[in-house]
Amino acid sequence: MNTQSAAAPLRVAIVGASGYSGGELLRLLAPGTGVHIAHVTAHTLAGKPVGEVHPILAGVVPLTFSSFKPEDFAGMDCVFVALPSGEAMEIVPALQGKVGRIIDLGGDFRLPTAEMYERYYKKPHTAPSLLGNAVYGLPELMREQIRSAELVANPGCYPTSAILALLPAIAAGLIDTRGIVINALSGVSGAGRSSSVELSFSEVNESIRAYKIGTHQHIPEIRTTLERVADMPVTLSFIPHLIPITRGIYTTVHADLKTDVSPETVAKTYADYYRNEPFVRVASRIPEIRSVLYTNYCDIAAFVEPHTGKLVVISVIDNLVKGAAGQAIQNMNIMFGFPEQHLLK
Amino acid sequence: MNTQSAAAPLRVAIVGASGYSGGELLRLLAPGTGVHIAHVTAHTLAGKPVGEVHPILAGVVPLTFSSFKPEDFAGMDCVFVALPSGEAMEIVPALQGKVGRIIDLGGDFRLPTAEMYERYYKKPHTAPSLLGNAVYGLPELMREQIRSAELVANPGCYPTSAILALLPAIAAGLIDTRGIVINALSGVSGAGRSSSVELSFSEVNESIRAYKIGTHQHIPEIRTTLERVADMPVTLSFIPHLIPITRGIYTTVHADLKTDVSPETVAKTYADYYRNEPFVRVASRIPEIRSVLYTNYCDIAAFVEPHTGKLVVISVIDNLVKGAAGQAIQNMNIMFGFPEQHLLK
Amino acid sequence: MNTQSAAAPLRVAIVGASGYSGGELLRLLAPGTGVHIAHVTAHTLAGKPVGEVHPILAGVVPLTFSSFKPEDFAGMDCVFVALPSGEAMEIVPALQGKVGRIIDLGGDFRLPTAEMYERYYKKPHTAPSLLGNAVYGLPELMREQIRSAELVANPGCYPTSAILALLPAIAAGLIDTRGIVINALSGVSGAGRSSSVELSFSEVNESIRAYKIGTHQHIPEIRTTLERVADMPVTLSFIPHLIPITRGIYTTVHADLKTDVSPETVAKTYADYYRNEPFVRVASRIPEIRSVLYTNYCDIAAFVEPHTGKLVVISVIDNLVKGAAGQAIQNMNIMFGFPEQHLLK
Amino acid sequence: MNTQSAAAPLRVAIVGASGYSGGELLRLLAPGTGVHIAHVTAHTLAGKPVGEVHPILAGVVPLTFSSFKPEDFAGMDCVFVALPSGEAMEIVPALQGKVGRIIDLGGDFRLPTAEMYERYYKKPHTAPSLLGNAVYGLPELMREQIRSAELVANPGCYPTSAILALLPAIAAGLIDTRGIVINALSGVSGAGRSSSVELSFSEVNESIRAYKIGTHQHIPEIRTTLERVADMPVTLSFIPHLIPITRGIYTTVHADLKTDVSPETVAKTYADYYRNEPFVRVASRIPEIRSVLYTNYCDIAAFVEPHTGKLVVISVIDNLVKGAAGQAIQNMNIMFGFPEQHLLK
Repeated sequence: MNTQSAAAPLRVAIVGASGYSGGELLRLLAPGTGVHIAHVTAHTLAGKPVGEVHPILAGVVPLTFSSFKPEDFAGMDCVFVALPSGEAMEIVPALQGKVGRIIDLGGDFRLPTAEMYERYYKKPHTAPSLLGNAVYGLPELMREQIRSAELVANPGCYPTSAILALLPAIAAGLIDTRGIVINALSGVSGAGRSSSVELSFSEVNESIRAYKIGTHQHIPEIRTTLERVADMPVTLSFIPHLIPITRGIYTTVHADLKTDVSPETVAKTYADYYRNEPFVRVASRIPEIRSVLYTNYCDIAAFVEPHTGKLVVISVIDNLVKGAAGQAIQNMNIMFGFPEQHLLK
Repeated sequence: MNTQSAAAPLRVAIVGASGYSGGELLRLLAPGTGVHIAHVTAHTLAGKPVGEVHPILAGVVPLTFSSFKPEDFAGMDCVFVALPSGEAMEIVPALQGKVGRIIDLGGDFRLPTAEMYERYYKKPHTAPSLLGNAVYGLPELMREQIRSAELVANPGCYPTSAILALLPAIAAGLIDTRGIVINALSGVSGAGRSSSVELSFSEVNESIRAYKIGTHQHIPEIRTTLERVADMPVTLSFIPHLIPITRGIYTTVHADLKTDVSPETVAKTYADYYRNEPFVRVASRIPEIRSVLYTNYCDIAAFVEPHTGKLVVISVIDNLVKGAAGQAIQNMNIMFGFPEQHLLK
Repeated sequence: MNTQSAAAPLRVAIVGASGYSGGELLRLLAPGTGVHIAHVTAHTLAGKPVGEVHPILAGVVPLTFSSFKPEDFAGMDCVFVALPSGEAMEIVPALQGKVGRIIDLGGDFRLPTAEMYERYYKKPHTAPSLLGNAVYGLPELMREQIRSAELVANPGCYPTSAILALLPAIAAGLIDTRGIVINALSGVSGAGRSSSVELSFSEVNESIRAYKIGTHQHIPEIRTTLERVADMPVTLSFIPHLIPITRGIYTTVHADLKTDVSPETVAKTYADYYRNEPFVRVASRIPEIRSVLYTNYCDIAAFVEPHTGKLVVISVIDNLVKGAAGQAIQNMNIMFGFPEQHLLK
Repeated sequence: MNTQSAAAPLRVAIVGASGYSGGELLRLLAPGTGVHIAHVTAHTLAGKPVGEVHPILAGVVPLTFSSFKPEDFAGMDCVFVALPSGEAMEIVPALQGKVGRIIDLGGDFRLPTAEMYERYYKKPHTAPSLLGNAVYGLPELMREQIRSAELVANPGCYPTSAILALLPAIAAGLIDTRGIVINALSGVSGAGRSSSVELSFSEVNESIRAYKIGTHQHIPEIRTTLERVADMPVTLSFIPHLIPITRGIYTTVHADLKTDVSPETVAKTYADYYRNEPFVRVASRIPEIRSVLYTNYCDIAAFVEPHTGKLVVISVIDNLVKGAAGQAIQNMNIMFGFPEQHLLK
């Protein structure tokens, strides 16, 4: 089945490779047997060698950034789009038909309707007809659909962590789907490569701040995905916090267990749900971010809190790997028949 | 009324001054007009100059640590006890009668019953008769009782932040007292001066971890204090997280608003409740830890989350100041008739 | 002599108070007996309350930023100028004659000649006639001249640390003034409040980088000051490094001792030189940054390195205090006859 | 020549795999084609699964730690010893003859004489006869000798960075070998997994400190290696500094260029020297630690400082990779005929 790696290598390209997700894609794909990076673009950095923009890749990725021109992508097997929100919907239509498969790492194709997109992303959607075609690229939920998808909407970092924390409980009907509380703590790279004062070292270091209370664009992504699983309405609080670390997301979820759900049932439900997943590790110890750094793992532990009887689930990922580039490569592996751990150790 | 500062300075002593809370007490008291630090003890460091153990105080506090001997404290106006939990209850009885007032920064006298202490601190209480006499030293709640207290139990760092976040809503009956969810993020100094691998830089840096889920000793302190205010049972989840910063606590609270409570009512309730408090700042912007570092402020903002209608309250403090030494000095100021900001700017 | 604090408070103003040095000035001056902050300006933030730009000062400094208009400063006893390099020389001439004394925290008046300024600051000096009048505000070297100065050029952060490290050895003629090597490590706040990608958290955290090798504008400031003391040419290497901490400068100096200078002579020379200085602590233990954070201290230790016989001097400061705002206040204290520790604990 | 990877995988073992270097060895070796980890020991953790001690390896390395028993190692092709200094010399003699090759990551076999070892490591050497047999495992200097070595002494982290910075200049005779000044900045993982207060987060974070001035055990390792290259005495200052980052070493070297050595000669000498090295990148831009994190690269830039004419060389590595485990694997690759980048991307 793994015919690609034995045969000619996959030809891949990255649109928008100068940011952190793009850089991480390059880092993971670079040494890869079975994959050939044929083309990388970066709007304002066209003409610059990759190693100058990402010095960690000097000598590793001997490519030069170019501007985006659709015709350059003709014949690519797989195109990764790692642009800021709102830009992918401008270029994906021009790629369709010219390239094999497209994996978008941004938010443009994750929501079901243009109206919902506009409400949370504060801009109109310019390619609404694609929304129905895109497959939400969370392998643990959508593996079969991903396999044959032409356009994959790679999940956001917060949603990956939050949804994986809740999937088993919701799928098994263990919890009340109303009143879920999600507190998520993110490293700063999640905000992208930025020149704002708010993200400067002196303002972020030795501090913490919540932001976008009740308005974060990942809220509808989490909610609609969980509603599809629950097949009923889900209401959830989601408070993102900025933490002075570079990488990682730490998500703590509270939910009300239905009566008579025992700790043993919770433990067994989680263990069973992810038993065959290559990148989810269910543990009984409390997860830490450092255990997933630079890996594609999501570590999860579910507890029944003494005294309150609430379900508390903690899940951690590296936001640039399982929360972005790693998951995109996992999706590529699924789409092209590679082993799922290919290039991800 | 402020006769002490005009007259002879207050004679104070610190038991257990080699840790972070003790060091912070020394830093704040040192330059103080109106206060004379007469005596400092540190079990294993007796004979060492303060400036060698706390190099920041070299040349500032020209004292030497001694061992604890009750007779050395005779005539002190105010004794601060900054010992690890379980040690204060061994020495406070020996101080009573010999000294004016005692402020304990540890957990030994914060809970109402010996049974509750034993359950959460995992050791028997050896001075249970004092539990009824100690006044819980949260000025915003207990100012009048503190004024005349002989023994003040200075609140824990997490409880200070969590209780101040909830006091107005509970006092005004705005929320359901069942199902409160508290997520708290703490700097590492909250764990004290420690030689454990778990708190070493390489294990804590670039990571996050929750701990003591459902079993933290601050849970009954928060709950019983809020129940006293609510005059009804309170159930609350409390998840503490260790964050790679040195100082600060960031507390995010979720609670269910009673029906018909408007955002305006929430805002007005919080503003009114703390209007005259010198060290609580109610704001509409989302608080950040860096805004309270090295100060005795607690910054609080209360929001009604869109879509869910939940009350979300965020409160931040410096765990070593408002969460420990600063609050202890605020209590001293109240007890001895100083202006409350004395030594705290 | 300290008549100001008994009499009417000193009227002070700050030009450019929205940056880190300006904010630190406000923090230190705010609670001050004897000083009244009458006026604060910030170019682009005119009309904003101080507490909105510096949330740590909310409720502490109840002022609003205004634009700079020279006439607003009439009658000020002391004006602090905390502008980016190149801006002070545009406004100081307009203040002269209208105000009592001026302390400039920037680099515009620290160098002896306009030519040297232009070479290192890459712009022409527009007020060269003031260069001869300004007194270099390093109290340990220029205390008497500062007392009566009309215009004080507050030293740079690196120069404060480096010069204090070398002063005793050079004044006593212990070292060869050629071939001095200075490696300095700085916290990120030294670069000012900035919106550059290079100073964003994700680029600075978990990294280190040297910069401006051989071209840093503090090189001539250090060299000319030391040459004045040595009364002979000084050649020195200076390599600044950016370190992922918010505050602090760590300076390690290597110099060749003249023959027959013993470790005892070195130790005695340093101890004697700073014996009466209120803000320099000479120690035998190796200094750490955390021991000077939020203080106006410079901690210094001098060693004779085994095997090589080189003099190694380490000096540390908080770049925003002794390296900027604290030293400026120390200068104000000297100029107006306050005790030197006034407002600096 | 690369017959191993085609044939049966190499059987490797790690003695002392519970520390950071051991964990990093496991991380790098784990996914490896061509290598089979057969055995891992950890003194006090015998019986514990690897994934419990190194949670990042849960599910990746399905081994359990055992105690060290020489007979367990019979038939191993390659044994990595990652023990604290002083322990390898106790066990290596028992392994010799039983196993193919040994790579020691500690300091026991790096110095030429037992006397020098005792002076710097403060303990007698118990296997002095091995000192002459061990090959110093710096591939850029000793590649041919490593190929056939039975016992490789993997270089220390500081020496790797410092020696690589100086090799080209010394080999080409560009600099005076007396008076070299090396300032090195290290992440905290270099101190090993530790439970000391000095390495606790609260003491290290937001601080910097130099240590072991003139007495560090890496001084003779650097000096004797450079003397072998220079074939004349070398005198050097070496000041290590502890920086609040987890990984990385930043080394800044000053040396006096011989007269008439031009910047062009310096640049060409460095570029030529490392032209064919797979893991040394010579650049003209100033290196940063983040560009080598989690890689086996050493990034180097050499400058002639304006005004002083000194040679300034900066070199950076990840102390756990090129400074420990990565270099050990590079040595293994050389010894067994793998491509040098095997397992190191």
